[in-house]
Amino acid sequence: MVTVETVPSGIPGLDEMLNGGLPKGRAILVSGGPGTGKSILSAQFIYNGVKQYDIPGIIVSLEEPAKTIKENLSSFGWDLDKLIDENLLAIIDAAPIQRSTDAGDRIYEISAESHPILGERSFNIENLISVIHEKRRELKATRIVVDSITNLTLQHRELFQLRQDVLTLVRSLKTTGVTSLLTAESLNVHEMGRYGLEPFIAEGVILLYMLRQGNTKIRALEIMKMRGLNHSMDAAFFKITENGIMLYPEERVFKEDVRGIIW
Amino acid sequence: MVTVETVPSGIPGLDEMLNGGLPKGRAILVSGGPGTGKSILSAQFIYNGVKQYDIPGIIVSLEEPAKTIKENLSSFGWDLDKLIDENLLAIIDAAPIQRSTDAGDRIYEISAESHPILGERSFNIENLISVIHEKRRELKATRIVVDSITNLTLQHRELFQLRQDVLTLVRSLKTTGVTSLLTAESLNVHEMGRYGLEPFIAEGVILLYMLRQGNTKIRALEIMKMRGLNHSMDAAFFKITENGIMLYPEERVFKEDVRGIIW
Amino acid sequence: MVTVETVPSGIPGLDEMLNGGLPKGRAILVSGGPGTGKSILSAQFIYNGVKQYDIPGIIVSLEEPAKTIKENLSSFGWDLDKLIDENLLAIIDAAPIQRSTDAGDRIYEISAESHPILGERSFNIENLISVIHEKRRELKATRIVVDSITNLTLQHRELFQLRQDVLTLVRSLKTTGVTSLLTAESLNVHEMGRYGLEPFIAEGVILLYMLRQGNTKIRALEIMKMRGLNHSMDAAFFKITENGIMLYPEERVFKEDVRGIIW
Amino acid sequence: MVTVETVPSGIPGLDEMLNGGLPKGRAILVSGGPGTGKSILSAQFIYNGVKQYDIPGIIVSLEEPAKTIKENLSSFGWDLDKLIDENLLAIIDAAPIQRSTDAGDRIYEISAESHPILGERSFNIENLISVIHEKRRELKATRIVVDSITNLTLQHRELFQLRQDVLTLVRSLKTTGVTSLLTAESLNVHEMGRYGLEPFIAEGVILLYMLRQGNTKIRALEIMKMRGLNHSMDAAFFKITENGIMLYPEERVFKEDVRGIIW
Amino acid sequence: MVTVETVPSGIPGLDEMLNGGLPKGRAILVSGGPGTGKSILSAQFIYNGVKQYDIPGIIVSLEEPAKTIKENLSSFGWDLDKLIDENLLAIIDAAPIQRSTDAGDRIYEISAESHPILGERSFNIENLISVIHEKRRELKATRIVVDSITNLTLQHRELFQLRQDVLTLVRSLKTTGVTSLLTAESLNVHEMGRYGLEPFIAEGVILLYMLRQGNTKIRALEIMKMRGLNHSMDAAFFKITENGIMLYPEERVFKEDVRGIIW
Amino acid sequence: MVTVETVPSGIPGLDEMLNGGLPKGRAILVSGGPGTGKSILSAQFIYNGVKQYDIPGIIVSLEEPAKTIKENLSSFGWDLDKLIDENLLAIIDAAPIQRSTDAGDRIYEISAESHPILGERSFNIENLISVIHEKRRELKATRIVVDSITNLTLQHRELFQLRQDVLTLVRSLKTTGVTSLLTAESLNVHEMGRYGLEPFIAEGVILLYMLRQGNTKIRALEIMKMRGLNHSMDAAFFKITENGIMLYPEERVFKEDVRGIIW
Repeated sequence: MVTVETVPSGIPGLDEMLNGGLPKGRAILVSGGPGTGKSILSAQFIYNGVKQYDIPGIIVSLEEPAKTIKENLSSFGWDLDKLIDENLLAIIDAAPIQRSTDAGDRIYEISAESHPILGERSFNIENLISVIHEKRRELKATRIVVDSITNLTLQHRELFQLRQDVLTLVRSLKTTGVTSLLTAESLNVHEMGRYGLEPFIAEGVILLYMLRQGNTKIRALEIMKMRGLNHSMDAAFFKITENGIMLYPEERVFKEDVRGIIW
Repeated sequence: MVTVETVPSGIPGLDEMLNGGLPKGRAILVSGGPGTGKSILSAQFIYNGVKQYDIPGIIVSLEEPAKTIKENLSSFGWDLDKLIDENLLAIIDAAPIQRSTDAGDRIYEISAESHPILGERSFNIENLISVIHEKRRELKATRIVVDSITNLTLQHRELFQLRQDVLTLVRSLKTTGVTSLLTAESLNVHEMGRYGLEPFIAEGVILLYMLRQGNTKIRALEIMKMRGLNHSMDAAFFKITENGIMLYPEERVFKEDVRGIIW
Repeated sequence: MVTVETVPSGIPGLDEMLNGGLPKGRAILVSGGPGTGKSILSAQFIYNGVKQYDIPGIIVSLEEPAKTIKENLSSFGWDLDKLIDENLLAIIDAAPIQRSTDAGDRIYEISAESHPILGERSFNIENLISVIHEKRRELKATRIVVDSITNLTLQHRELFQLRQDVLTLVRSLKTTGVTSLLTAESLNVHEMGRYGLEPFIAEGVILLYMLRQGNTKIRALEIMKMRGLNHSMDAAFFKITENGIMLYPEERVFKEDVRGIIW
Repeated sequence: MVTVETVPSGIPGLDEMLNGGLPKGRAILVSGGPGTGKSILSAQFIYNGVKQYDIPGIIVSLEEPAKTIKENLSSFGWDLDKLIDENLLAIIDAAPIQRSTDAGDRIYEISAESHPILGERSFNIENLISVIHEKRRELKATRIVVDSITNLTLQHRELFQLRQDVLTLVRSLKTTGVTSLLTAESLNVHEMGRYGLEPFIAEGVILLYMLRQGNTKIRALEIMKMRGLNHSMDAAFFKITENGIMLYPEERVFKEDVRGIIW
Repeated sequence: MVTVETVPSGIPGLDEMLNGGLPKGRAILVSGGPGTGKSILSAQFIYNGVKQYDIPGIIVSLEEPAKTIKENLSSFGWDLDKLIDENLLAIIDAAPIQRSTDAGDRIYEISAESHPILGERSFNIENLISVIHEKRRELKATRIVVDSITNLTLQHRELFQLRQDVLTLVRSLKTTGVTSLLTAESLNVHEMGRYGLEPFIAEGVILLYMLRQGNTKIRALEIMKMRGLNHSMDAAFFKITENGIMLYPEERVFKEDVRGIIW
Repeated sequence: MVTVETVPSGIPGLDEMLNGGLPKGRAILVSGGPGTGKSILSAQFIYNGVKQYDIPGIIVSLEEPAKTIKENLSSFGWDLDKLIDENLLAIIDAAPIQRSTDAGDRIYEISAESHPILGERSFNIENLISVIHEKRRELKATRIVVDSITNLTLQHRELFQLRQDVLTLVRSLKTTGVTSLLTAESLNVHEMGRYGLEPFIAEGVILLYMLRQGNTKIRALEIMKMRGLNHSMDAAFFKITENGIMLYPEERVFKEDVRGIIW
């Protein structure tokens, strides 16, 4: 009888909440407002996958150039370049950039480094999928992060075509056996992504949000959906520490001086 | 004089709330937000139909491949493969997948298993209905689940055509005498599906939702509409146990530490 | 001097609230969310019209087939077939059904019974109006229910054309002297129908809604508008009993443990 | 120096609130939800204008046929036919009716009485304006009611054209020196009409609304805007009595058991 | 070093709140709901500019004919005709009026007086701007009011073109050194105009609103933005007295019996 | 290993909240409602960059002409002309102005000064970017402010093209190593700009807002997102003093008499 296998998330405290780990071979949505920690959580999944479990992983960035990602994560002491050199990590930079086609009149300068793979091809979802799978086979990667699918908005005039692209991308990831985290920007705890379809193309949804507590903000993580797993129903307090995200499931989020959810 | 016949729902506690069972030969909407238990409830209707009442049933999946469904439900100890082998259960995998038409350049690999029936035809509602009815006659199935009709959104650019398809599908189910559950994703307790028409094409509506209680979430089920039956007006607390959904109608849902409905 | 004549509503307690009865020859909107009792109230108006006052009536169903309506109402001990046989009642089944035009490849089977009148013609509002008036003359019916006008949504791509159809239908009913109830689905107490025009094509509006009281739901009816009548301004508690809808105007609806209106 | 002249409103208590009466020669918006009393208030302005001040008036009905208006108002003992016969009152029936153009196949029967003036012309705003001014000159009417401008929605596919029509109608009324009341349907106290422009084409706005008080509803009137007059800022309680609308400005509307505004 | 010069507003109490006066040569938005006093405040700016400071001014009316404006303001004892005769004031009547082009069939009569300037040209924003600047040069006016820019909605089918027109008008005013007040209708304190761009084309925003206090309404004025000036952050109570608007900054607006902002 | 370098913000108190300063070479969004201080904060970043750190900077104004900016900031004793003369500051005036193309019929007069750079070219995003980079190289500027990107709304009929332009502009700034602040108008604390994409094209988001406290308004600043920095989660009270913005992080913003956020 088939059952749901899990893989370790690399986020201290999350596997316990998940009742094992992230479901292997599936696509999980990480949804939250700006600044809630989606990019850190998903990068930590990849980084700790390599460091703690020797599982090669890929970060597909639809938002930041590789250099910026490396800088941001260096504050946690994570040296991505080393892992890239060891062929345990790849960053696919697919931020939607408009270039001047006229080489003689380059208005803005993009460093050669920023598009190591996609640079030679025009952006479309099939090209991106090809690049991901080439890299996946090369590294034998089984963990992939796409950060964030919200950025595909910039590629489409029409909602229908956008949904098709998201669906195509997610399906492609799911059918290859990799475990993937997809981040989605939302401005509302009840929204979970902007296309209105993220929740039902993903087998799991992890929600990150901020609450106003007194004069400050605190961070919370909640598992809203995780098919096949008897996950925790609790809201977990978390901090972005110098080593990345750390969950404190034993600490209550909804205290008396909480003034409501920000986003 | 004609009266409303009922069939057992297979959900412990639900038949009492329904005042008998689900109305035979009708289409019932199961509406709820992500992670509220729609897929489990509807699969349990089919699984327990076979196991407890020897009624063959069909799960039409517009969302997950058959393999994923089997994995998810294995956590309840439900062995779907066995029932499929005994010709008591069929899973029709009709998740809306975009394929590369060029066989020589397959970008993503779909296992042969995933589209056992629909694979050879292009997706349209008439093809899906044909497949359902072929399978229905083959198994002599009288219980059918469609999970979820929200996914048809991915097939249509236009709301009007989408509504026509949903209507055509639901009508087709109702006219053949099968009892069907249709799941619909909603992000709001007052919404009940995304097309704005689900409530009035279904003869019954069961609502699943989550409430924030202290620092955790609890689950609730409510019958909002069930034509011809003198159903309960109560909100029932439920749990997803190791045997599937279990209702606790005697336990109050709206307690003092409830902080409102999540979705 | 002309005055407003009334006819008995057939709903125990409602005529007192209306200060006489329903205004004769007019169109009254019965608005409410799913499961609030619109179909029962309107069918009871027709059924008790025949049984208690010998007034022939017609139910125009844009939603359910005749068979389903009969089944649903049988739980109140109402034998519609008997009244149909006595030519005191007609059910016009005009649910918007898409058929396969190719007779050799019928995908779904519709029983001959389901479209006793409209079946031979294509659906358009003029055809429906013709059928209604033929039946009206045949039965000398002076009470008509249309349940629900919301379903006309399925026939139109464009809001403007839809409004024209609703207007045409309602005007046609009003000009023939019949007293009619039109049901309209709403998901919000303040909405009263989906076209945004129902309230101002109807001379009266009766609102049905549900309130959360403790852990259960209670039902309420309110007259929002009834031109020419000095109607009650109260919210009336009601129950769906084994004999149909029963109003308890003396019982308060807005009690201390009421947690707000559901829809 | 020009100053704002006023005319008596015919509504007991309103002239005191207005600080004199309605501004002569201007267009005033009467806005409110269904059943709030807009049609009664505006008809009372015309009826009492004739009875108490011998001022001929016109009711332009875009909603109800003349017969229905007469019936509705007969409950206050108002005999409109007598005033019509004395050439002191005219009812222009301009409800937007779709007719079958094929005389041989008239689907619905419209009594000859219902369109005494407009019947021979196709509906457009210029035709309506012509008819109004013909009647105005014939009766030397200086008070006109248009009930309700919301119904013009039924004539237009496009918001822009609709606004042009409303503007044309209102301007035409204002330039002829008549004092006019225009009713507009709203479902929200803060809305004041559906076109989003009513408030700024009218020199005054009177708001009618209902509040939930305990288990019943009470009625309130408020002057939101009345250019050139130092009007009351109070909310006034009112009743629909057997003689029409009666204001009780001395009675508080916002009492302790008020549960908020309905619409 | 350039600094922000100010001019007196002519509104008792406002200059103190502004910390000097209105910024010279700039465009200030006066935003508020219907009946909040936008037209009075802006006319008072012009009238008192002439009477108290001998500064010629222009009222550009996109809403009311000149005659109505004069009538409305006469209640404050303001004799505009006298100022017009002395060439200290001009009223440009540019209310968007649809005329019959067929001279032989004039449906509605517009008095010759109503369009003293614009009448001979078709309405477009360039024509209006030309007329304003002709009059400005003729009077040497340095204060201009446009009441209200919301009415330009009636001239455009498309939001983009509308925004272009508003921008063109405002820029034209700003570049000529006049100090201008632009009124904008809003139905919501947080809205500030209907185009969604008023706040960022104006260097200052003054908000007028009404609050429900007990059974009555009170008026408030607040400066939301005034670039270059260290303005008050308080909400100021104001009254429309027999001499126009009078601010009472020392009186609190948000008292205990205030039931929230109306609009 | 690459890390996030920071530059001083020039806002007293902000660098401590940021845990160092603004991230060097990145684009930060400054979002807030009208009058919340976005323009002052961003100008202060440039001005103090020059005065305190000798870093040349550029203000790209999409809203105000250069003269107005100078006037507004003179109230803080900031003499921009002096810095411009010393080639340490440039103001690029790119306010979207419609001009008459017919030189013989100039409707409105724009001073020569107002478009020192862009004036000779038609406005499009590529031209603007060219001008910015010419000026950047000329001054060796490494700090740039764009105030505000919301104004680009006026240049586009279509949201998709607008988003492309914003993306192109922001990417161009980021790839040249300058640290930039982009202001965005919002009417809602949870909105952060009007295009729905600002938050995910910027590596950081600083939110400015106003709260109603008693009868007055107070100002607050919050860091919502700042990639790579362990920033403060607190809300900081701030004042616009005679020297510009001054943060008071030790003073609580959410006090007992706070009546909620205005915008």
